[in-house]
Amino acid sequence: MTVSFEIIREISRNTTSKIVLVSLDGLGGLPDPLTGKTELETASAPNLDRLAEKSICGLADPVAPGITPGSGPGHLALFGYDPVSCNIGRGVLEALGIDFDLQPKDVAARGNFCTVDGQGIITDRRAGRISSEASAELIRLLDGMDIGGVKVLVQPVREHRFVAVFRGEGLNAEVADSDPQQTGVAPKKIEPLNTEAQVTADIANEFVIKAKNILAQHHPANMLLLRGFSQHPHLPSMSEIYKLNPAAIASYPMYRGLAKLAGMTVLKTGPTIQDEMSTLKQNYNDYDFFFLHIKGTDSAGEDGDFARKVDMIEQADRVLFQLIELAPDVIVVTADHSTPALLKGHSWHPVPVLLYSRWCRPDGIKKFGESACRSGGLGRFPAREIMSLAMAHALKLNKFGA
Amino acid sequence: MTVSFEIIREISRNTTSKIVLVSLDGLGGLPDPLTGKTELETASAPNLDRLAEKSICGLADPVAPGITPGSGPGHLALFGYDPVSCNIGRGVLEALGIDFDLQPKDVAARGNFCTVDGQGIITDRRAGRISSEASAELIRLLDGMDIGGVKVLVQPVREHRFVAVFRGEGLNAEVADSDPQQTGVAPKKIEPLNTEAQVTADIANEFVIKAKNILAQHHPANMLLLRGFSQHPHLPSMSEIYKLNPAAIASYPMYRGLAKLAGMTVLKTGPTIQDEMSTLKQNYNDYDFFFLHIKGTDSAGEDGDFARKVDMIEQADRVLFQLIELAPDVIVVTADHSTPALLKGHSWHPVPVLLYSRWCRPDGIKKFGESACRSGGLGRFPAREIMSLAMAHALKLNKFGA
Repeated sequence: MTVSFEIIREISRNTTSKIVLVSLDGLGGLPDPLTGKTELETASAPNLDRLAEKSICGLADPVAPGITPGSGPGHLALFGYDPVSCNIGRGVLEALGIDFDLQPKDVAARGNFCTVDGQGIITDRRAGRISSEASAELIRLLDGMDIGGVKVLVQPVREHRFVAVFRGEGLNAEVADSDPQQTGVAPKKIEPLNTEAQVTADIANEFVIKAKNILAQHHPANMLLLRGFSQHPHLPSMSEIYKLNPAAIASYPMYRGLAKLAGMTVLKTGPTIQDEMSTLKQNYNDYDFFFLHIKGTDSAGEDGDFARKVDMIEQADRVLFQLIELAPDVIVVTADHSTPALLKGHSWHPVPVLLYSRWCRPDGIKKFGESACRSGGLGRFPAREIMSLAMAHALKLNKFGA
Repeated sequence: MTVSFEIIREISRNTTSKIVLVSLDGLGGLPDPLTGKTELETASAPNLDRLAEKSICGLADPVAPGITPGSGPGHLALFGYDPVSCNIGRGVLEALGIDFDLQPKDVAARGNFCTVDGQGIITDRRAGRISSEASAELIRLLDGMDIGGVKVLVQPVREHRFVAVFRGEGLNAEVADSDPQQTGVAPKKIEPLNTEAQVTADIANEFVIKAKNILAQHHPANMLLLRGFSQHPHLPSMSEIYKLNPAAIASYPMYRGLAKLAGMTVLKTGPTIQDEMSTLKQNYNDYDFFFLHIKGTDSAGEDGDFARKVDMIEQADRVLFQLIELAPDVIVVTADHSTPALLKGHSWHPVPVLLYSRWCRPDGIKKFGESACRSGGLGRFPAREIMSLAMAHALKLNKFGA
């Protein structure tokens, strides 16, 4: 059982102790059939291993056993939020992914350019995957419309994909997609899902008609589809819940956006792991919680590149030495989900967790890896309990009840 | 945390991969004090052991730690249903147990013949446990009454026990038992538990009065008691939830009935394990999920016959070789509950689980047994998560969230 935010809020206290949560994105893996060892078990990671000796380890399920998490649910769970009830809409996530400065009342939708025939029937939902350059040119034609006082901001994502953000008063994201998710039919009229969303649906439909006229001569991208209309989820911030002053260090925009949703201050950083570690060192005195996100492990897993994932873990391990030298009170090393190179994608396998603190009850694990974590002192547990465990080990939680 | 059916329904996908769920009924046991080994650990089961080497194992609680499940909750949990909120009424379960073709609007009750004295006071709640043959003769006198347009179907179960099914329009199962569960008092009038159930209560009471008159001269079975009035629970089907085309192979009617409640197609089969396996082979191409129920383990446990339970496990193991040859994508071997021979009945002990898939993260277990499963990669978990784990390992679940 995981305790509620109400209880954590009641018992959490502000102290000078420091917590660093390292997310090695997609860290969990599957064994190479030849060696029987996962990516993490194959890597030479002496710093992680030395840390493991003084830590308590375990295996965590980001969402639930058998459920493969997207990056959103995976990270929200690490920050302590219920990844199911706090699920974030596709439009918002896409906006976060391009570092778009989403405002609380904005409604964001994910957009696709598509191809329609003379009768308006969709023949290609991705407009032949037009290049990012060609897409950007069309987006310039669509960006900045004013429809009845509502501004429509259109920003490129990649190839045929873009984000459309509706900014104005009284908007409501409860509208259905225009994207029918199949060819051979016309795009759907955007329908309100409740009466409060009628205005938003009308504006979105008007935007689609205007865009259609503008795009008419730009075959194959002569139409667009919108889906995943959503708004900022308004999560309680980590400072409200945990009385922390939290900061995020992430070189990829999506993770900066997720950290912002949790109320973290996002620190400016460079693209490499060393850049991120330098940012941590420079800002170490100013915050009591750091979320450090390392992307390379996941990308290598997604590419099915076992050796590169091993290499990324080894790179991270070398840099982690500097973190250990800073001597934070609690270090957690884990992941938002597994990305086994063998599966070339996110998977449902539980993630290895290492929690270092001078107050942990060590469990005899001497090497950080999935097999070893199976017999760790944390057992198998929901990832959203990591935050209360970290808080406890940093002596930031008062007694519950008398 | 177990995710809801809404989420599973959203992320499940239909694929060609196949799942076989084997329930060795009552498999879990307790160690023989002389050897320290359970029935499963005593059995020579080379096929299960070889499978375990390529599997992930664990211990599952069918309902919750400390709770001994009946066959209903035990199996519903294996099919992924919450065994507490989906609890099935005693009348319905009894009807399923005799292969009665229960209709959606039927109200079923469990019946007992009993003995009453001249003042109508119960002196024996089981009518001296009259023989099944004597009972069947009396049931013929009661079966088929028409009471105000409602048909009352009475069918024998065993000894003094029978099922009474009320079939007609507007029936409601929310009525109290007539069985006071003690001697020295009169049977209770059947009371409606809400206003919609008044008609049903009236009809049931009229049936009891008519039956009493018919039985008057048949001491010791000169009266009857009814309890557990219930209706078909209308569970969402496994094809709705999981997009599966599921089939059940079970030689005992109760388990066919439970599978039917979950929307499985029940395949005709013979009484032996080999019959069941042959049925599986003949139908292998036509379904993507098979529930294979093996009863002998439980019966031996109920009889307190440790050696026979070991023998049943060995018999099942020999037949399982043919299943392994079929090479389904996922094989789960587990049980609906434990039935330790030492306890001569169902017990609360968690059940061993083996999940084979080429995508599992193996856990080094080389012998399938309760002790080994304790350190398995699945840990200790609720049995109702078995289905989402099986679906994940068959690559039948999409990512949750982006």
